[in-house]
Amino acid sequence: MTIHFRRDLEHLQQRILGQAGQVEQTVDRAIRALTERDSQLALQVMEGDNTIDQEENEVEEECLKILALHQPVAVDLRRIAAILKINTDLERMADLAVNIAERAHAFAQGQPMAIPSRLQEMTDLTNIMVRDSLDAFVRMDAALARRVCRLDEQVDACNRDIIRELIGVMKTRPDLIEQALNLFSASRHLERIADHATNIAEDVVYLVEGEIIRHHPEALQPRADNGKPGSPER
Amino acid sequence: MTIHFRRDLEHLQQRILGQAGQVEQTVDRAIRALTERDSQLALQVMEGDNTIDQEENEVEEECLKILALHQPVAVDLRRIAAILKINTDLERMADLAVNIAERAHAFAQGQPMAIPSRLQEMTDLTNIMVRDSLDAFVRMDAALARRVCRLDEQVDACNRDIIRELIGVMKTRPDLIEQALNLFSASRHLERIADHATNIAEDVVYLVEGEIIRHHPEALQPRADNGKPGSPER
Repeated sequence: MTIHFRRDLEHLQQRILGQAGQVEQTVDRAIRALTERDSQLALQVMEGDNTIDQEENEVEEECLKILALHQPVAVDLRRIAAILKINTDLERMADLAVNIAERAHAFAQGQPMAIPSRLQEMTDLTNIMVRDSLDAFVRMDAALARRVCRLDEQVDACNRDIIRELIGVMKTRPDLIEQALNLFSASRHLERIADHATNIAEDVVYLVEGEIIRHHPEALQPRADNGKPGSPER
Repeated sequence: MTIHFRRDLEHLQQRILGQAGQVEQTVDRAIRALTERDSQLALQVMEGDNTIDQEENEVEEECLKILALHQPVAVDLRRIAAILKINTDLERMADLAVNIAERAHAFAQGQPMAIPSRLQEMTDLTNIMVRDSLDAFVRMDAALARRVCRLDEQVDACNRDIIRELIGVMKTRPDLIEQALNLFSASRHLERIADHATNIAEDVVYLVEGEIIRHHPEALQPRADNGKPGSPER
């Protein structure tokens, strides 16, 4: 690895760490807009998406420039290819956070309704996954990446509890069905953000250990309910 | 472009066209499992996911090999980078089709309930988008790619009508709430498959015209309801 390549790689890594920080902040703000019924904050989150999109375009250009200039091979090439993928994941996460803000905006216009009890826990877990998946990439830390993959099960469990709670509300209060659907969708978007963090973490394990766990999650450890037919994941 | 590079590129393109065909077929089967309450078919779709995952890993390896071997620059480099991204999109689409099959499996266990009237139309539109976005890429056809982007609005409109219909059912038949949520989720997954096709089409326009429409959809044409706050998109 030449000094120039290393410098360019480090610059790229700092950028994607910065993007991850922005995603975390966006998720926090979107969920706060939801729980505090703050439509102004929801609108702010929706408008802030342009910055993240712009950043994604620039990171992609930087990756292509590095590929053309340094023509990396082997592990260096894999790292740049991984950054290209992570970059897309981060942009999709930001989009999902904006989708949450859209639900928050709609929710704030409707009737008051209790927020599902595990939503904050799910938000915190998701943000830990976002941060740790990126840290795992930059530090090439497979153990940390595996921990991120395992956290995803807790997020899925939160999501299932939230859905159960919402179904209960819908059955007894038909007038709250639209509001419950706003929360249902927000919870699903959050769960998908955690899925993207899991994708990144799986790529890290593959990069470090040269082992494809992405499509062989059984290599992680026995998962209690992963994708079982008819499981309550929506 | 050397003869070898062209040959390798063509091979890659045939592979992603094949993947797209598989995605279409998977979507069709998953929706059929849903509408015909066929849990056996749903299980078959869920089990078929391994093939597509395997294919994704192989295409990624092939891209990296081409980058290392031919060290393409400029437009050739962009094409390979685009295939890397399309490959990820196709794998996510297949995952979403499997998510639909999971909902189909759950739906088949529950009470009978009418399928929303526009679901088949939405499925057909989505599959056209999947096929045409890939065709647009292989033929570098920006006009076709733009048509794919415009079709996405029709898919979103179908999704909104379906959600409206389902909310109506939930309000009058609380006993059908779980079943309606299965259909709600299936419709959302389908809409997300169309979003991935749109991502691919936007990348094609960018590749052909060097113009970033990905994050500037207004460059396409005025969109009636794109991301407006509180719009009924879930």
